[in-house]
Amino acid sequence: MSSSDIFIGETIGTALLILLGGGVVAAVVLKASKARNAGWLAIAFGWGFAVLTAVYTTAPLSGAHLNPAVTLGIAITSGDWSDVPVYWGGQVLGAMIGATLVWIAYYGQFHAHLTDKEIVGEPSAEAKAVEAREKGAGPVLGIFSTGPEIRNIAQNLATEIIGTFVLVIAVLTQGLNDSGKGLGTLGALITALVVVSIGLSLGGPTGYAINPARDLGPRIVHALLPLPNKGGSDWSYAWIPVVGPLAGGALAAGLYNVAFA
Amino acid sequence: MSSSDIFIGETIGTALLILLGGGVVAAVVLKASKARNAGWLAIAFGWGFAVLTAVYTTAPLSGAHLNPAVTLGIAITSGDWSDVPVYWGGQVLGAMIGATLVWIAYYGQFHAHLTDKEIVGEPSAEAKAVEAREKGAGPVLGIFSTGPEIRNIAQNLATEIIGTFVLVIAVLTQGLNDSGKGLGTLGALITALVVVSIGLSLGGPTGYAINPARDLGPRIVHALLPLPNKGGSDWSYAWIPVVGPLAGGALAAGLYNVAFA
Amino acid sequence: MSSSDIFIGETIGTALLILLGGGVVAAVVLKASKARNAGWLAIAFGWGFAVLTAVYTTAPLSGAHLNPAVTLGIAITSGDWSDVPVYWGGQVLGAMIGATLVWIAYYGQFHAHLTDKEIVGEPSAEAKAVEAREKGAGPVLGIFSTGPEIRNIAQNLATEIIGTFVLVIAVLTQGLNDSGKGLGTLGALITALVVVSIGLSLGGPTGYAINPARDLGPRIVHALLPLPNKGGSDWSYAWIPVVGPLAGGALAAGLYNVAFA
Amino acid sequence: MSSSDIFIGETIGTALLILLGGGVVAAVVLKASKARNAGWLAIAFGWGFAVLTAVYTTAPLSGAHLNPAVTLGIAITSGDWSDVPVYWGGQVLGAMIGATLVWIAYYGQFHAHLTDKEIVGEPSAEAKAVEAREKGAGPVLGIFSTGPEIRNIAQNLATEIIGTFVLVIAVLTQGLNDSGKGLGTLGALITALVVVSIGLSLGGPTGYAINPARDLGPRIVHALLPLPNKGGSDWSYAWIPVVGPLAGGALAAGLYNVAFA
Repeated sequence: MSSSDIFIGETIGTALLILLGGGVVAAVVLKASKARNAGWLAIAFGWGFAVLTAVYTTAPLSGAHLNPAVTLGIAITSGDWSDVPVYWGGQVLGAMIGATLVWIAYYGQFHAHLTDKEIVGEPSAEAKAVEAREKGAGPVLGIFSTGPEIRNIAQNLATEIIGTFVLVIAVLTQGLNDSGKGLGTLGALITALVVVSIGLSLGGPTGYAINPARDLGPRIVHALLPLPNKGGSDWSYAWIPVVGPLAGGALAAGLYNVAFA
Repeated sequence: MSSSDIFIGETIGTALLILLGGGVVAAVVLKASKARNAGWLAIAFGWGFAVLTAVYTTAPLSGAHLNPAVTLGIAITSGDWSDVPVYWGGQVLGAMIGATLVWIAYYGQFHAHLTDKEIVGEPSAEAKAVEAREKGAGPVLGIFSTGPEIRNIAQNLATEIIGTFVLVIAVLTQGLNDSGKGLGTLGALITALVVVSIGLSLGGPTGYAINPARDLGPRIVHALLPLPNKGGSDWSYAWIPVVGPLAGGALAAGLYNVAFA
Repeated sequence: MSSSDIFIGETIGTALLILLGGGVVAAVVLKASKARNAGWLAIAFGWGFAVLTAVYTTAPLSGAHLNPAVTLGIAITSGDWSDVPVYWGGQVLGAMIGATLVWIAYYGQFHAHLTDKEIVGEPSAEAKAVEAREKGAGPVLGIFSTGPEIRNIAQNLATEIIGTFVLVIAVLTQGLNDSGKGLGTLGALITALVVVSIGLSLGGPTGYAINPARDLGPRIVHALLPLPNKGGSDWSYAWIPVVGPLAGGALAAGLYNVAFA
Repeated sequence: MSSSDIFIGETIGTALLILLGGGVVAAVVLKASKARNAGWLAIAFGWGFAVLTAVYTTAPLSGAHLNPAVTLGIAITSGDWSDVPVYWGGQVLGAMIGATLVWIAYYGQFHAHLTDKEIVGEPSAEAKAVEAREKGAGPVLGIFSTGPEIRNIAQNLATEIIGTFVLVIAVLTQGLNDSGKGLGTLGALITALVVVSIGLSLGGPTGYAINPARDLGPRIVHALLPLPNKGGSDWSYAWIPVVGPLAGGALAAGLYNVAFA
C-alpha cells in the first residue's frame, strides 16, 4: 500500500467511524432526536457497526487500522514502523472530520439541547454531574469524547488498558484464523462484534475510548466548535484515553509475540 | 441481466424491503400490536434485516439495488446508464406494493389506532406534534414515509446526504473486498448491518429515508389508502428525502472514483 | 438422505427450535424469570437464534426444514413429494418434545406464575385479555402457541400468509446465492436473521406462527400438561396458524417458479 | 496441538470469556456504571460476544473449548481423553484470572455499590432476595457466579442440563457443516449466537452457567477478593452449575454418537 492510499484510507475510515460512533451517542442523548433514550445496547451496537462500516469500506485502501493502538500493536508484532506516522496522522484528521460531520447532521438537535434551560442549567440531581462540570466536562462532551463515571486515574487507566488489550489481541490473531489475510469481509464483522462486546462488558466505567484518535480528535473539535453553552472539554482527563489504549495495544502485541507468534 | 429480470427483481425486492421496513414501524407504533413501544433499536434492526431479506432474496435476479440512490451511484461509477429507468421504475412500484402490504398485515391495528380518540384527537402534548400536523403530517404517516424532528431544509438535506453517502460508499466498495462480485450472501449481511448502523447513528434527526423510493412510493400509497382520520401526507417535505439521497449517492460515487477506483 | 435421517433430524431440530423459541417467551413472560419483561426485541432475537441453533445443528441430517410450510414450498418447486409425510411427522413430534422441555426448564416459574392470584385472577384490565379468555386462551398459552391481538379471520390469515411468504421465498432463493447448496452455515445465519426480521416487522398482529408445527404441536402439549389454572388452549383459532402458513409457503413456491426458476 | 499451547490457549481464552461475560453483568448491575439497567438482552448479547471474542482469539492455540462440558463432550465423541486434564486446568485458571480482571476494571463501581447503604442494607422487598441471602448469596455474587431464581435442585439441574445440551450438540455438529474443521471464523460466530440463544431462552431460571469453569472459578475468586460487605459465596448451590453442565455435555455427546456420527 502506498503512503497516500494509507493516509486517504485512514482519513476516510476514521471519519466514518467517528461520524457513526459519535452519531449514535448524539442520537441517544440529544433532545429532539427520534432515538433519544434508546439505551446502552443501542450505543454498543452503534459503535460496533460503526467499526464494521468504516473497516469494511476502507480496508482495501489502508488495511483499516483506524486506531493508533491497533497501528502500534501491528508495528510491534511486524517490526515495521515506517508507516506509523502516516497512519496516526490520517486517524487523527479523520476523527476530527467525523466529529464535525456529527455536528452537521445533528445541528438543530445540538442547538435545541444546549439552549434548553432544563438541560443546561439543571440543578444537577446527581453529584457525579456536578463533579464532572467542575472538572470541565460540558453537557454534550460525551458525544465527542469519553469521560469516567468515577474519576480515579489508576482504575480509569486500567479499564482502558484492559479494553484495548482485548481489541488488539483479537485483531492480531485474525491472521491465524481462516478469515486470514488481515481484514477480509468476515474479519471486519468479527472485529465489529468484538467492539460491541467491549462496549457491553467494559464500557461501564469510562465509556471505552480504546482508541486514542477516537477520543483526542473529537475533543479538539469540541473545543473549536461554536456550540452555545457547551462547557469545558475536560482536558485534564484527555491523556488517559490516549495513554491507556496505547499501553493496552502494546501489551496485546507483547502477549501475541510470546504466546501466538 | 435482462430488463425484465431487473424490473421483476427490483419490484419484488423493494416490496419486501418496504413490507418489512414499514412493518417494523407499524409494529412499534400502532395500538394493539404485540411489539408496541419496542423502541428505536427494534426499528433500526428491523429496517436493517428488511434490507437483508430483500437483498438476499432478489440479488440473483437484479443485483438488488432496491434504492434509486444506489442505482445512481453504480451508474456514475460504471458509466452504464442504460438500465437506470428500469431500476427506478421497479423500485417505486415495489415500494408502493410493500406499503400496501403493510396496510393489509396491520389492517385491524390501523383501524384501532386511528379510531382511538386519545390518539387521533390527542391535545398534542408536544409542540412538535402540533407543528407536524400543521405541516400536514397525519398520525400514522411515519409508518409510510419519513419526517424531521426539527424542520430545517438545510440540516434535513444535509443529514439525508450524509446518511446516504455512508450507505452508497459501503455498497460501492464491496467489489474491492473478498466478498467480491457485488452482493453475495456475506455482502448482503454487511449491507444490512451498515443500514442498522445508519439507523442507529444518523436516524435521529430525519428518520433516515436514505432511499428516494422508500419514501416517495409509500407516501403516494398513504395519500391513496382509505384510512380513517389519516391526516395529510406532508407533501411539502416530500422532495427532501428524494433529492438528499440522490445527492448523497452521487457524492459517494464521486469519492469512489477519486479515491478507490 | 434416508427417511430415518430425515425423521430424526426434523424431530431433533424442531425440538430445539421450540425449546428455544417457546423458552424465550417463557423467559420474558413468567414470574421469577431473570429475563422477565425483556421486551419484544428479545423475543424476536430469541426466536431467530432458535432457528439458527436448530437449523445449524440438524442441517447435516435432514436439511433442516423444521417447518411444514418450508417442506411444502420445497416440494412444490422440486416436484418431489415423497418425503413430505416423514418431514411433517418429525416436525410435529419435535415441536411437542420441545414444548415439553420448555415446561421442564421453567417448571417452578410456571407454577409460581399460575398460582399467583394477581396474575391468574387478575380483573383483566384490558378488554382484549377478557376476550381472549372467553375464546379459551389461558394465561400462559402464549408460551406454547400464537394468538391474535385482534380477532379477525381475514386479517389474521393474511398476516400469517404474508409472513410465511417472506420466510419461504427467502429459503427457496438460497440455492441461487453463493451460499448455495441449501442450508450451509451462512445460509442458516441468514435464515435466522430473516426470522428476526419477520418477528420484528410482521409479528405485531398475530405473534407470527409462520410454521404450522410450531403452533399445533405445542398447543397439543398445552392441552395435555398438568398445569394449574392453565385455562383453555384456544382451539377455535388453531386452524389459522396451520392454514395461513401453508398457503403462504405455497404462494412463495408459485412466485419462485414464475420469477426465479 | 502441544499441551502447552492447549494450556495457554484455554487460560487466555477462558480469561477473556469471563472478563467479558462477568464484565457485562457488572456493567448492568453496578452503581456508577454507564450501562446500568441495560437489561437482559444486553446480558445475553454480552455473554454471546464474550464467547465470540474468546473463541476467535484462542482457537488457533487450543481449539478454544473454554468450557469443561465442551471438552467432555469432545472427549466422549472422539474417544481421546489424554488432554482433558490440561484443558480443564487451563479453563479453571483462566476463569479465575478473568473474574479478577472484572474486579480491576470495575474497582470503583464495586466499592460504590457495596458501600451504598440502600443497596447493601436494603430491606429486601422481594422474598427471593431474603432467601438468597439466607442461603449465602451476597449482593454482587451474580457478577461472579450463577444462582437460581427459585431454589429447586431437580429443576435447577434440569435447566442447566438442557442448556448445556443445546450448546454442546451445536458445537459437536460443527464439523458436519461447511464451516468444517472445528472452530473456524464462521463457526466461532455461530457458537456465539447459540450462546446468545441459550441466554435469551433458557437463562431465566438459573442464569445459565452451562459451563462448570465459568461458575466455579469466579466463585472461588469471589470468596477470596477483599470486597466490603460482599456477603457469602453461596457454596451450597455451587455443585449444580458443575454437575448439570457436565451431564448436559455428556448427554449431547451420547446423542451425537447415536444420531449424527
